[in-house]
Amino acid sequence: MCGNSTACARANIMAEVPQGWEARGKPPILTRRFVFDGYGATRAFLDALAALSEKTGQHPQNINFASTYVNITLESGEKGELGAAELDLAEKINALYLQPEG
Amino acid sequence: MCGNSTACARANIMAEVPQGWEARGKPPILTRRFVFDGYGATRAFLDALAALSEKTGQHPQNINFASTYVNITLESGEKGELGAAELDLAEKINALYLQPEG
Repeated sequence: MCGNSTACARANIMAEVPQGWEARGKPPILTRRFVFDGYGATRAFLDALAALSEKTGQHPQNINFASTYVNITLESGEKGELGAAELDLAEKINALYLQPEG
Repeated sequence: MCGNSTACARANIMAEVPQGWEARGKPPILTRRFVFDGYGATRAFLDALAALSEKTGQHPQNINFASTYVNITLESGEKGELGAAELDLAEKINALYLQPEG
C-alpha cells in the first residue's frame, strides 16, 4: 500500500515514467535523448515539438540538439514534484517520435 | 607580424570573433548565449536560425535552449581550426538577433 506522502508520490511517478524517459531528483526532472538519422528528421521532430508546445502551452524546460539528436528535459511544475502534466507531456513527445514523417 | 603557423591563425581568429561570441580551444569552438524576453521571441529566433541553416547548409554544432535563452556552439570544420566559415555563420546569427521581429 502506498499513502499520500511525498516519497510515495515520487515512487508512483517512477513507476509511471513513459518509455525511454529517465526520472532524476534534485530538482526532479524527466529527461530523454531522441536520436535521428540526419538533420532533416531532427528538424521535423523539432518543428513538431514546437507545434505541440504552441497547442498545449507546455514547453520543455530545456532542449539541447545537434544534427542527429535532441535531448529534452522536463522539469517539475510549481509544486516541485514531477506530476501528471510532465508525464503527459513526455507521452505526447514520445508520440511525436513514433509518428512517421510526412 | 604574424606568419602562417597554427598559433598565428588562432590568434587572428581570436581578433576577429564577432561581437558577443567567445572562442575556446580543445576542441576549438565559438559560443554565445542569446537572451530573450519570452518564449515567443525565443521561438522566432529559433525559426529564423532554422531558415538560415536551410538556406546556407551550415548548422551550429549544438543548440541549447529554454523559454528565454538560446546557447549556440559552432565547432571547427574539417581542419580542426575555427575558420572563415564559422566566423561568417556567427556574424549571420548575430544579424538574426539584431533583426527586429516581424
